[in-house]
Amino acid sequence: MINCRQSIESLRPYIPGKPINDVKQEYGLSQVIKLASNENPLGCSDKAKEAIVNALDEVGIYPDGNASYLRKALSKELNVTEEQLIFGAGSDEIITFITQVYVGEGDEAITCTPSFPRYASAVKLMGGHIIEVPLKNYTFDLNGIVNAITDKTKVIFIANPNNPTGTIITKEEQLDFLKKVPKNILVVMDEAYSEYITDDIFPDTLSILKDYPNLIILKTFSKAYGLASLRVGYGIAKESIIELLNRVRGPFNVTTLAQNAALASLKDKDFLKQSIELNTTIKEWTYEKCDALGLDYIPTFGNFIMIHIGVDTLEVFQQLQSKGIIVRPGCFLGLEGWLRVTLGTQEQMALFFEKLTDILN
Amino acid sequence: MINCRQSIESLRPYIPGKPINDVKQEYGLSQVIKLASNENPLGCSDKAKEAIVNALDEVGIYPDGNASYLRKALSKELNVTEEQLIFGAGSDEIITFITQVYVGEGDEAITCTPSFPRYASAVKLMGGHIIEVPLKNYTFDLNGIVNAITDKTKVIFIANPNNPTGTIITKEEQLDFLKKVPKNILVVMDEAYSEYITDDIFPDTLSILKDYPNLIILKTFSKAYGLASLRVGYGIAKESIIELLNRVRGPFNVTTLAQNAALASLKDKDFLKQSIELNTTIKEWTYEKCDALGLDYIPTFGNFIMIHIGVDTLEVFQQLQSKGIIVRPGCFLGLEGWLRVTLGTQEQMALFFEKLTDILN
Repeated sequence: MINCRQSIESLRPYIPGKPINDVKQEYGLSQVIKLASNENPLGCSDKAKEAIVNALDEVGIYPDGNASYLRKALSKELNVTEEQLIFGAGSDEIITFITQVYVGEGDEAITCTPSFPRYASAVKLMGGHIIEVPLKNYTFDLNGIVNAITDKTKVIFIANPNNPTGTIITKEEQLDFLKKVPKNILVVMDEAYSEYITDDIFPDTLSILKDYPNLIILKTFSKAYGLASLRVGYGIAKESIIELLNRVRGPFNVTTLAQNAALASLKDKDFLKQSIELNTTIKEWTYEKCDALGLDYIPTFGNFIMIHIGVDTLEVFQQLQSKGIIVRPGCFLGLEGWLRVTLGTQEQMALFFEKLTDILN
Repeated sequence: MINCRQSIESLRPYIPGKPINDVKQEYGLSQVIKLASNENPLGCSDKAKEAIVNALDEVGIYPDGNASYLRKALSKELNVTEEQLIFGAGSDEIITFITQVYVGEGDEAITCTPSFPRYASAVKLMGGHIIEVPLKNYTFDLNGIVNAITDKTKVIFIANPNNPTGTIITKEEQLDFLKKVPKNILVVMDEAYSEYITDDIFPDTLSILKDYPNLIILKTFSKAYGLASLRVGYGIAKESIIELLNRVRGPFNVTTLAQNAALASLKDKDFLKQSIELNTTIKEWTYEKCDALGLDYIPTFGNFIMIHIGVDTLEVFQQLQSKGIIVRPGCFLGLEGWLRVTLGTQEQMALFFEKLTDILN
């Protein structure tokens, strides 16, 4: 018997959903619609696919560990130095880099709950304590977080918009909060869904980065850019933070195909625009549909929406799955009574509501 | 100023080599040959490329976190249960899982030096001490490792064949060693290059796995299968070890394209055979060439070879690079006076020797 580290004992492995093909087989379905993982219903840019095909002859060669070309393009686009950027196999990998660098045994990190579960698991992995302040009105409770700060606090994780509720903290709220947080605490602004937001009240965090040397912004190519399968995201912070995070990064953590596809996607502004516009249209349509059906919902800034169904969500999830529609039940998210539904295409959403009303009636 | 964990202070970020295109530009070269990273000179299987193209429509969807189809195929091929397998973004990611699970502050892990540098960095990351026993006759010193075992030893890392020397420990040596190691210490047999070995004296570690519950075998698709850019490797151990490692694995750590390409590569036995045969041919040719030139070398079991040039290897590395050939100088590997050269194609190796003799004369 080999003893593991104590902090591993409380961790549980992620239980992945079944592959779509398995769901098809199990229920004898010809079509399965997945509205569970906040993926882009348009898939990805054709330019990204081309970039993958063009790189097939490099499959045998290790990736550029520096992601040089993607780094150069992004540095130019964001007007930050190349040394202010770190790339991860998804922005969630960067969450792990952050706890590996800053969170030791007995240290504390603060977030709200329910939010993205990887904050807590990354903190626990390093033997740290995660302090989970309840959301207030389904929104990050910034005052609650400030009140939870202690001498042991090393990192604060904020999802903006929050997953799973889709709510945001505004520009003013963010500024007010940052002024109250001691500068020896790293503030992580996880903006995985920010591309979808056109509203002026949403913070332009990049523009205040120079004023807050304890700030890191996380972004991803998995959502609006539609590259979820390729695992590529990035972080932006001042150079000295990035240098530390790079010490724990695997040398080849982002694949060549991911780097090339991300670079091509970054240039394809039309696809991004189309994705955002579709999301806005479907969101408005979904609001109307919920209103018409008398279903409560949380207005969302992301590409997903929480819909209140008020009954056993695991049961509804299973019935929806048997009818070929996969959503995320609130019981898995700490919000029993709600379903988290990714905003799909018009056809997908219509089918979802059709099956849902069948089940609820 | 945000304080990082103490163990991060001694870590250094990996300094990646330049992209080939940058080397071309810098030296005005039309062609650059990379014999530095032990990649397959044949690239990858055409079946793997087809599998990538066939999966382009899934780019926007998160990977199957369970790697179900690859897992099923590999479990059948290796005759182990599906629960005995873990997949990593390269087998090097599994090295990190191992230290995250088993190595805490003040714990010890043992390996030999010089060997694969990721063992040491993964141990240091977790605040552990890495005990590095010098190679004996360029080979893992198993008695030295046994003598270095203390109450604090949690993990032993063995690269077989060893990188960078290409030497192996034999079946008998491995058995003798495993009998001496207490069962509460995890023994990692890193066999990244084992596909290249047809020699009977090399251990069939899989066949003794059931006798040694403290054993994990690491394998990769990066070398003989030629999928280095895609980052996919795997570990085989008893179920309870794999279950713990899965607790620290990111839920989507292996990309869809990597899973599909690995599955296709696993089935393409012809490509694997061709890769191994080419390696054997080029190895014999390289031995003869070294003999003819009076250059000492270490007979190798991998797809790379250490060649003794006896002079400042950084200088020779730079001169070779300016002539369009990238190798790994011994000064980076703890073996000054030697070059590590990946066994390329006949043309590549001939060009390497031509340029090398130019420089040495």
